[in-house]
Amino acid sequence: MDSREHFLIQNIGAARFNSPIDLSTIRGDTIFNFVRDGDKVIFDNSLKAYTECLNEERLPLALEKAGPRERIFFNPSETKVAIVTCGGLCPGINNVIRSLVMGLHYFYGVRQIVGIQYGYEGLNPEYGHQFIPLTPLSVRDIHITGGTILGSSRGAQEVSLMVDNLQRHQIDILFAIGGDGTLKGARAISEEVDRRGLKIAIAGIPKTIDNDISLIDKSFGFETAFDVASPIIRDAHNEATGVYNGVAIVKLMGRDSGFIAASAALSMPMVNFVLIPEMNFKLHGEGGFLELLRKRLDEKHHAVIVVAEGAGQHLFKSGGESVKDASGNVKHQDIGRLLQDAIKDYFVAEAYPMTIKYIDPSYIIRSAPANASDSIFCSRLAHHAVHGAMAGKTNFVVGMRNYCFVHLPIARVIQERKKIDLEGDFWFAVLQSTGQPLVIS
Amino acid sequence: MDSREHFLIQNIGAARFNSPIDLSTIRGDTIFNFVRDGDKVIFDNSLKAYTECLNEERLPLALEKAGPRERIFFNPSETKVAIVTCGGLCPGINNVIRSLVMGLHYFYGVRQIVGIQYGYEGLNPEYGHQFIPLTPLSVRDIHITGGTILGSSRGAQEVSLMVDNLQRHQIDILFAIGGDGTLKGARAISEEVDRRGLKIAIAGIPKTIDNDISLIDKSFGFETAFDVASPIIRDAHNEATGVYNGVAIVKLMGRDSGFIAASAALSMPMVNFVLIPEMNFKLHGEGGFLELLRKRLDEKHHAVIVVAEGAGQHLFKSGGESVKDASGNVKHQDIGRLLQDAIKDYFVAEAYPMTIKYIDPSYIIRSAPANASDSIFCSRLAHHAVHGAMAGKTNFVVGMRNYCFVHLPIARVIQERKKIDLEGDFWFAVLQSTGQPLVIS
Amino acid sequence: MDSREHFLIQNIGAARFNSPIDLSTIRGDTIFNFVRDGDKVIFDNSLKAYTECLNEERLPLALEKAGPRERIFFNPSETKVAIVTCGGLCPGINNVIRSLVMGLHYFYGVRQIVGIQYGYEGLNPEYGHQFIPLTPLSVRDIHITGGTILGSSRGAQEVSLMVDNLQRHQIDILFAIGGDGTLKGARAISEEVDRRGLKIAIAGIPKTIDNDISLIDKSFGFETAFDVASPIIRDAHNEATGVYNGVAIVKLMGRDSGFIAASAALSMPMVNFVLIPEMNFKLHGEGGFLELLRKRLDEKHHAVIVVAEGAGQHLFKSGGESVKDASGNVKHQDIGRLLQDAIKDYFVAEAYPMTIKYIDPSYIIRSAPANASDSIFCSRLAHHAVHGAMAGKTNFVVGMRNYCFVHLPIARVIQERKKIDLEGDFWFAVLQSTGQPLVIS
Amino acid sequence: MDSREHFLIQNIGAARFNSPIDLSTIRGDTIFNFVRDGDKVIFDNSLKAYTECLNEERLPLALEKAGPRERIFFNPSETKVAIVTCGGLCPGINNVIRSLVMGLHYFYGVRQIVGIQYGYEGLNPEYGHQFIPLTPLSVRDIHITGGTILGSSRGAQEVSLMVDNLQRHQIDILFAIGGDGTLKGARAISEEVDRRGLKIAIAGIPKTIDNDISLIDKSFGFETAFDVASPIIRDAHNEATGVYNGVAIVKLMGRDSGFIAASAALSMPMVNFVLIPEMNFKLHGEGGFLELLRKRLDEKHHAVIVVAEGAGQHLFKSGGESVKDASGNVKHQDIGRLLQDAIKDYFVAEAYPMTIKYIDPSYIIRSAPANASDSIFCSRLAHHAVHGAMAGKTNFVVGMRNYCFVHLPIARVIQERKKIDLEGDFWFAVLQSTGQPLVIS
Repeated sequence: MDSREHFLIQNIGAARFNSPIDLSTIRGDTIFNFVRDGDKVIFDNSLKAYTECLNEERLPLALEKAGPRERIFFNPSETKVAIVTCGGLCPGINNVIRSLVMGLHYFYGVRQIVGIQYGYEGLNPEYGHQFIPLTPLSVRDIHITGGTILGSSRGAQEVSLMVDNLQRHQIDILFAIGGDGTLKGARAISEEVDRRGLKIAIAGIPKTIDNDISLIDKSFGFETAFDVASPIIRDAHNEATGVYNGVAIVKLMGRDSGFIAASAALSMPMVNFVLIPEMNFKLHGEGGFLELLRKRLDEKHHAVIVVAEGAGQHLFKSGGESVKDASGNVKHQDIGRLLQDAIKDYFVAEAYPMTIKYIDPSYIIRSAPANASDSIFCSRLAHHAVHGAMAGKTNFVVGMRNYCFVHLPIARVIQERKKIDLEGDFWFAVLQSTGQPLVIS
Repeated sequence: MDSREHFLIQNIGAARFNSPIDLSTIRGDTIFNFVRDGDKVIFDNSLKAYTECLNEERLPLALEKAGPRERIFFNPSETKVAIVTCGGLCPGINNVIRSLVMGLHYFYGVRQIVGIQYGYEGLNPEYGHQFIPLTPLSVRDIHITGGTILGSSRGAQEVSLMVDNLQRHQIDILFAIGGDGTLKGARAISEEVDRRGLKIAIAGIPKTIDNDISLIDKSFGFETAFDVASPIIRDAHNEATGVYNGVAIVKLMGRDSGFIAASAALSMPMVNFVLIPEMNFKLHGEGGFLELLRKRLDEKHHAVIVVAEGAGQHLFKSGGESVKDASGNVKHQDIGRLLQDAIKDYFVAEAYPMTIKYIDPSYIIRSAPANASDSIFCSRLAHHAVHGAMAGKTNFVVGMRNYCFVHLPIARVIQERKKIDLEGDFWFAVLQSTGQPLVIS
Repeated sequence: MDSREHFLIQNIGAARFNSPIDLSTIRGDTIFNFVRDGDKVIFDNSLKAYTECLNEERLPLALEKAGPRERIFFNPSETKVAIVTCGGLCPGINNVIRSLVMGLHYFYGVRQIVGIQYGYEGLNPEYGHQFIPLTPLSVRDIHITGGTILGSSRGAQEVSLMVDNLQRHQIDILFAIGGDGTLKGARAISEEVDRRGLKIAIAGIPKTIDNDISLIDKSFGFETAFDVASPIIRDAHNEATGVYNGVAIVKLMGRDSGFIAASAALSMPMVNFVLIPEMNFKLHGEGGFLELLRKRLDEKHHAVIVVAEGAGQHLFKSGGESVKDASGNVKHQDIGRLLQDAIKDYFVAEAYPMTIKYIDPSYIIRSAPANASDSIFCSRLAHHAVHGAMAGKTNFVVGMRNYCFVHLPIARVIQERKKIDLEGDFWFAVLQSTGQPLVIS
Repeated sequence: MDSREHFLIQNIGAARFNSPIDLSTIRGDTIFNFVRDGDKVIFDNSLKAYTECLNEERLPLALEKAGPRERIFFNPSETKVAIVTCGGLCPGINNVIRSLVMGLHYFYGVRQIVGIQYGYEGLNPEYGHQFIPLTPLSVRDIHITGGTILGSSRGAQEVSLMVDNLQRHQIDILFAIGGDGTLKGARAISEEVDRRGLKIAIAGIPKTIDNDISLIDKSFGFETAFDVASPIIRDAHNEATGVYNGVAIVKLMGRDSGFIAASAALSMPMVNFVLIPEMNFKLHGEGGFLELLRKRLDEKHHAVIVVAEGAGQHLFKSGGESVKDASGNVKHQDIGRLLQDAIKDYFVAEAYPMTIKYIDPSYIIRSAPANASDSIFCSRLAHHAVHGAMAGKTNFVVGMRNYCFVHLPIARVIQERKKIDLEGDFWFAVLQSTGQPLVIS
């Protein structure tokens, strides 16, 4: 199988209706053109990839462009749509819900839209959560505040129960907004739908505040996350300078990757150390973090540390098997507290006067409303998801790659997580900004 | 002794110079008049106090008005001024520093102003902190961010050492920005100065983010505190509604009084319970807090709780003597964690599904920049402190009473702390806004 | 007639029902007490007023305290309430609407509440605006954004038509949120209601972003106004310093008084000149504004000017009669543009290189959401209005005087406007902050 | 000449020194590698461009990657650097200045850095503006507020005078932060430097709040611009809904392209019409804008319009030659006022009651501090400019292309301006969000 086939998007059937949107198919008339399945975006735009293709005389891997199709699968006036939001909060969820409803209603004339309450729980009848009708009026102002008006939950539900429920309610399209676990669930639902020979399209909008989905440029909520974290770092700097030898630790999200921590630190350049999951730093001994911190205090009498929640897991004594949360993520040991204790112990042992302030703003960040950039991004993601689903695409997500909105098979985006390349330009920017050593070990 | 004498302001000597400020002494020329020591503001403006005075045919208690005096004690061109900031951070400290410097420089022409670093530590030569010169240029933009450019510390220093130091540096005026402990220190310095027959004026600018100074309308930083807390409560509400039976707890400052918690809850009216130090609530049993919380979840499936840090101390088992921090404040047990545990235990025991989110934004609040109201307030407080000190007032603080800026003897403002009257109009407003019962017991 | 009678509050009839609120009448049980009509707050708390009363052996003027009454006039289960918002936008209107609805619903159990659309127009059937039902659910989130969900309009409508309409809809209580003109209208409605022998209570919540209502401490929206204006002044300073001899003019609201301009300037102390309606400054000649501005540019090469919209009206050539807007306010000539032109002409004539930036943020300020302080204030005002109206008070407004919420007869609050005392402490604070001369003439 | 040669970066001479930065040259050691001049990024990542290259068996156009070089031209300890900021304000200028200074000082150890005041004026001795020394301490906090600490000016200065001045001050590197005109000036300086055989590197950091530089992903300040505009649109919506048939017009920046207007409208999806320079809309007649507006008011009774300053220039009667400002940009006629007048006239003529509010927040937007995304972007741009200039690159700018930081010859970026493609995905997103017709004509 050609590697390109890995990125083929599944359709639930041949398109049967003309799109009610009045677009063009020719270039030059100042009217947007319908997008065709053959319209593609190259995946890897490095010169290296290019040269390889040239040498091997083959076309590069390319992704299907998202956008309105001329022919669609569902008959809008009869289509029934459900929306579900799963996992932890993330800025922009309400923007996505709003734009899904607005797009379905105004572009296609879909009139039957329901919200599933409290994540996949709401698809399991045992919980007794009711579906709630969604209309342009009911979602009009929900982007102003954060959170999700539908509620959420973590963890999987029995797939067959969920598909039973979709069938019972005659849902044609399910939009699932969530992270890794959610998308795995969406894929399982999609496969069960296939198995039963149903015509239900399953469209995912990937949500991870950590920005760690590997094939796409960025995920929604991420920019807001470091935007909200930015003044908190300024505050932490005030705490650090407010006492003699003051150390302020800000713990930010980032289970397996340090994008939020690194970006927040770059955006408010008063940070002296950034510690992220990708780093294998040591605390003690020569060149270790504590020695570096001491040097900093000797010189400047204050320090600001930003640490990602998943950093330094190698510093914990391994105690048998790892614990997982309801979403199936490995539960991390609390690096923030470990760091706080280690620093305190170190300086107490040295009779070195200093003060630590520990700040964990995670809930404040993830429940904030989307900023302007994310608002745009959420809206465009949602509209593209609507176009794809109405055209009959299924088992897919929408995402942005090289500034283009594309369709990706769910299976592809849940394979691995994006990480910061410690040898890359972005991490070097962090090192330049903080002045911390290239390697702490 | 007449009670009014309790509020007499001490002078370090008879005024010797004409004020360099070109003001008026007659009304009606559209130019502000110099304030005279006899200009007073009545202390208690209740009808009851009024009637009592009428019946007893006596004048009411009245406070000396702050403001520029026609004759001043210090010769500006020779005056040397020091500024010290003590205790925890509070929004507006830099605004006060800035306005002290600007006022001294531009109104009076004082050219020798120094900042003492790291609180009273900076007055104790053993710590080796240097004085730093303060000029209009060096303080011009410091109000934009929070914190204190001088640094701070908690706790007392040996008074005689500090006065030695003031003498050695030939300081004429010391401005001390701080809370209870700081003002007690300022008073002790003032008394030692007296004992030595020195002519050093000691002026306090009372700082307590908790707003619990008893004789004045409000303290600086307080309005900013609940202003910053307000969107955090909105975020907490997003967390609470984001899951089924979600409970969000926001712990706010308030050691002995609940002003910040109550005001923040009033300002973002999605709060269901406010718990403050003044309340004697119980957790368990009929009418207790946990039962009320359960009823709330039964009905609405989410709840937002705001708790002041000093609330519910009666719920902790008393274990011998109380512990105090470096500032001499009784160290409180952590009501936030107790509440979190008690709630979890209660609902687990009842096999009642629910989720708790705990948010403690204290450092973010106290290190924020002053908002517009507080900026004005800080600036006016500082200017009045400058006028008072230049006139030779000492052992006094500036404050606002019945919308007027007044002088108060330090001894008076450290006697007791302001608390919320549970039978008063303000607390009733909180009960109306939250819908919580009048009494939880 | 005793002057105190001027402040008597009219009742539409004797109270007939027990309050459904379960409060206390005794002090000391930690439960808020019902407020009695005899509970009063003294109006003037100056020592001078005090002494006069003492000398004349009379009680001082005192105002009726607002708050829940033990006996009320209206039967909540049958009461029908209407809310109308008039005049220009002001931060906090939605907070007031929300709190009126919440208070009526939750404190008293009132179930019939309607919103009148587009101000008094909505009471005139000719316009065809429908009443809209208001419920806790429909108003729950309206405080998050600014504006008024009911819409507004300026100008009077035929009183008899409006009262006909109130009668036809069997309205028992009308809450009117608006400024001078609105309150005049409310008073006229109240008088027509009296004339017809109806039992309709008319309660006003005074709205003026300018803070120029004379008998009360402050009006809602005012603090938000200068809070929003504050960073705009920082921006203006950036514009002024961004070019050589840069002058930035910020025009702020203030028809007859300069409270917003003065407060905004105090809150962001980079302003060099504040021009307000109360000042009689001249532009040209020695000591005139233009000469002062030139001196400033000579020294510092930039200047920031804040001007209230109603300032400098004496500088316009009087051309016959004054023009009024639909609200009956005298239409002011545009001082911002006049200033801009005069400055430009002056420096061009002198061949003095400089650049002017003119910023008018009025719409951005008045349509902003209420800040935390104003949110509290709006909520408390509205709750007090509910208590007063349910008790049968009419032809009254609620306001804060000396930190107490009181009832005031409408007739009293529309008599004159509050102005800045140019010889007072507040204006002197502005002069100290800006460094501008005591008088510009 | 191969088209690729158009993108060759000029060097002022062969590198002579080893970089003081301790980086790696091998991959896999977790240490960032020096960038080599041969490291390139492909310019056009469309599948079409790809296929063409494949067919023609040639390498695609590629750009030189920015980043630290192993060998540099300038000896840091002797290097003297100057920074100049020109043209209108834009969020992020101070961030760029700060990061240039920090990068030069901390990465390379450059100790002689000066700021040129008031744009190119500061290079012309006739103006008498002094150079000011820049140090890490003096620039540490300048990113907190907007504006430029160096001041700016528009327009060109005599090139030979400027180069004389650079020579006289023995400047080795000039960083020029500015737009089209500034970059043209930088190129002219560079050419004159060449002519004289001097070794002065000229590096540009392109600044255009309009985001209209054609070869790069985005320009700094642009994201902040629509971030700041976003709540202003919410306010405008409050104004529009606050009256019956209310129309609010928000005029935003955008001389030749509508990126800010379109992005702001997308970010706050209450906008009904976006008018941009790229559109050739008509006002009157069937299908014209005024008819559309009337239909909107008929249905919804309010409308929000966002208009870019350069929109609708075809609607003005051409009156001879176009006027240019000091920067050489064509001065646009005021579309905001024209629109306001045309709307008023149209509805007055139809006796259709409505109200217009006109909001022009331009100065507030451009003088705001950079948001978090832009802060990061500015910092990285500046650091890359430092690396490029220290390596001896000249007559170049730094920019981001396909998420990579690259060097571009100044001559290339000033050739043409980026515009919104009316047939593209982005503009279609705007149409989807507003619901306005595909074409207004």
